[in-house]
Amino acid sequence: MDKAQILVASNRGPVSFSINEDGSLDYRRGGGGLVSGLSSAAATTDTLWVCAALSDADRTAAANAPEARLDLAGFDLGGMRVRMLDIPPETFGNAYTRVANSTLWFVHHMLYDTPNKPRFDSAFRAEWEDFRAYNAAFAEALLTGSADNARVAVQDYHLALVPRMLRGRRPDLRIAHFSHTPWAPPEYFRMLPAEIGRELLEGMLGADHLGFLSRRWADAFLRCCEVFLRVDVDWARRTVEFGGRVIDVGVHALGADAESLRSRAGAADVDEWRTALRERVGDRKLIVRVDRTELSKNIVRGLEAFRELLREHPEWHGRVTHLAFAYPSRGDVPEYREYTEQVQRVAKEINQEFGTSSWTPLVLEVNDDFPRSLAAYRMADVLLINPIRDGMNLVAKEAPALSDDGCALVLSSEAGAADELGADALLVNPYDVSETARALRTALEMDDDERRARCERLVESATALPPRRWFEDQLRALK
Amino acid sequence: MDKAQILVASNRGPVSFSINEDGSLDYRRGGGGLVSGLSSAAATTDTLWVCAALSDADRTAAANAPEARLDLAGFDLGGMRVRMLDIPPETFGNAYTRVANSTLWFVHHMLYDTPNKPRFDSAFRAEWEDFRAYNAAFAEALLTGSADNARVAVQDYHLALVPRMLRGRRPDLRIAHFSHTPWAPPEYFRMLPAEIGRELLEGMLGADHLGFLSRRWADAFLRCCEVFLRVDVDWARRTVEFGGRVIDVGVHALGADAESLRSRAGAADVDEWRTALRERVGDRKLIVRVDRTELSKNIVRGLEAFRELLREHPEWHGRVTHLAFAYPSRGDVPEYREYTEQVQRVAKEINQEFGTSSWTPLVLEVNDDFPRSLAAYRMADVLLINPIRDGMNLVAKEAPALSDDGCALVLSSEAGAADELGADALLVNPYDVSETARALRTALEMDDDERRARCERLVESATALPPRRWFEDQLRALK
Repeated sequence: MDKAQILVASNRGPVSFSINEDGSLDYRRGGGGLVSGLSSAAATTDTLWVCAALSDADRTAAANAPEARLDLAGFDLGGMRVRMLDIPPETFGNAYTRVANSTLWFVHHMLYDTPNKPRFDSAFRAEWEDFRAYNAAFAEALLTGSADNARVAVQDYHLALVPRMLRGRRPDLRIAHFSHTPWAPPEYFRMLPAEIGRELLEGMLGADHLGFLSRRWADAFLRCCEVFLRVDVDWARRTVEFGGRVIDVGVHALGADAESLRSRAGAADVDEWRTALRERVGDRKLIVRVDRTELSKNIVRGLEAFRELLREHPEWHGRVTHLAFAYPSRGDVPEYREYTEQVQRVAKEINQEFGTSSWTPLVLEVNDDFPRSLAAYRMADVLLINPIRDGMNLVAKEAPALSDDGCALVLSSEAGAADELGADALLVNPYDVSETARALRTALEMDDDERRARCERLVESATALPPRRWFEDQLRALK
Repeated sequence: MDKAQILVASNRGPVSFSINEDGSLDYRRGGGGLVSGLSSAAATTDTLWVCAALSDADRTAAANAPEARLDLAGFDLGGMRVRMLDIPPETFGNAYTRVANSTLWFVHHMLYDTPNKPRFDSAFRAEWEDFRAYNAAFAEALLTGSADNARVAVQDYHLALVPRMLRGRRPDLRIAHFSHTPWAPPEYFRMLPAEIGRELLEGMLGADHLGFLSRRWADAFLRCCEVFLRVDVDWARRTVEFGGRVIDVGVHALGADAESLRSRAGAADVDEWRTALRERVGDRKLIVRVDRTELSKNIVRGLEAFRELLREHPEWHGRVTHLAFAYPSRGDVPEYREYTEQVQRVAKEINQEFGTSSWTPLVLEVNDDFPRSLAAYRMADVLLINPIRDGMNLVAKEAPALSDDGCALVLSSEAGAADELGADALLVNPYDVSETARALRTALEMDDDERRARCERLVESATALPPRRWFEDQLRALK
């Protein structure tokens, strides 16, 4: 069969390549909720996944595959059909690094240092042209790969312009777009050049169905439509009328894939890490955090909250260890390099202020090690997740499901996950270091029964909509 | 008469003191729209103005006056009664610099570099206690100074807690509060610690009438009340019910005091500056900006827009001069010192890139000189006012009223003044350097008749509600 009935489009695909020392290609199937959800759906239906080559190795693989179809090039993709687009590096760099990651991500997460950034100048206009070209390359691949009346599930802000590009040429297609980020409120979204803000909104409104992770983000999107496109929103039905069509806006709260995570967390390498970590921290209580070093993840204020806890409650000295795993991210964006240095500086200060010959209060690891993270999730007494703004934060849902003895969850009110987990987590304002410190203490001192009972309920909420059902939900919305 | 019928409370009063070389006190009556509006009302009614001592000289004057009443100490205050509060320096510093200027100002102007600031820790809680004490000192002075059923006009975010402090003890008082800043949308306001955000809103809702400079800021305040206090807003009447009372929210768009400004701008020192500036720039077109070096004023992006204009339109080389007067402000806040350096760096770059032996494209002056500013307003062909967010921006209203031959106004859509002036100004998104550059060019190339006609209409709109009537409006709202 040549043309697919269901198409998925996302910047990052389900597989990535590397080049071995002998020059041959190696490849790795991706992890994470989105990939696992889409993969399981993609493997059992007539589905084509369109993604971008992200590295030189990816480009080589794509260039060597017939029509860039990796599944036709002999790689085992578990039955998935995958087309990997080899977009020219400069176009890709401007679209991905400059527009998507340094602009749209910053807008939706409200990360700008506004007196200084953003600056929309003529250089940005050129980058925007590349963002259009990148979106157009995806649209072209989807158009040529889709059967009549096929359903297309476009993923995330990188591809916001794709729905409208498809709609114009193929009105038979049923198009969904899903946003994995938060959405900016109108007062922040209006920083974007007016015509670019409208192009983003109108691009997405080319879809039949728009999905968000939280009602809060869906509402922000609808308010932006009201303010910047002056369209009527039906707030009861959560629909917008635009271009003579009715687009509906839904909330699909992606949950944890507990089954596969538990299976992975039971493996020998995780057990080994558990033993090693236990030797390192002894019988002290454990506060755990695991993040990409991402500006929105708010690692520094989290460390400062731990410091305030130790300053104000010396009775915890020697009795608690904070494991903070903060693996590097986006080293090509200067703000991220500076932030990483700041994380390391504050960590050092804390150990200098409180550490003794027998107790290291804070263990910061900046390399990525998935089995070690799983071991830490199993062992955590307290899990700290305090992003300043986060589409969902899947770790908040995954980690409790792995806990050996039930963990307490200190969770930012600004994560989408707070919708489902707010009743049993300890919610904090991520800017409020003192409130976070108090919540950490409450979590540490929570009695065992309450902690276990809360954790059970957390797991129940967290697994209500596992990735595969989450994806099926979106497709169903297209019927 | 001992107790006043009308009371004004504001951090900065209508007079400030300095110490002469011989140790004696010197004093100066303040300028600016607010002071002139309140002064003229205060001088003709039974009014007491309560303000804070801002300097050591102010403190000395206050300490030496009977009951801190400057009008009883032999100073000529044009008939006003003024009580200047000598609040302990540390309390004042925490309330004014830390809470008001480094926190509330940043929230309402959306100025935070969110990954790094704000951080609400235990030190902030101590500063907040001082903010309460500072508000309580004003409340106490207003309570002891007010006749039965007196009207109290509380000014600005520094004194947000005062209305509720008065209400509890003196239900006979009629209380107004006026915000001279923008108001943050709920998604930004929620950065504040929850209990502190509520305390601010509830503090203001102690008033009978709340005034704002723009409908946009009034709406943002009402939305914050809905979200954080869960009160019902009557959007048709623009009222909130709270504590068993109905509080109304009004928009009073402060305008320019054209008459007194024109009289001042006709003085000899202004004429001298005009001659001196004209000699300096010759018959070139003039783009003028005058600002405090304040993060919200967006000076750097303004200079960059001028640079983009010169890069893309070499036909303007040698034919235009940009006069940028950026006088220092808030040197006690580190962000402001860094910003001042950045302004100077970009200015230097522009002159290095385009300057010739006979043409200095950009003239940056960082000292404050009021007659020089007035001369520049009279001469400007184009006035550039591009704040990233601004309660009103009175310069946008004052400068056109002084123009000798009609100026074009390039104005940020994020200034409150855009409400009244939007139809005849060239509105720009302050983050959009390219759009600002295009507007500068359109302004420079506008034909004389259109420029003059637009300027006439600008002046008409700008002077619709001069300071005194603006203040009377607020008092009338208390009847």
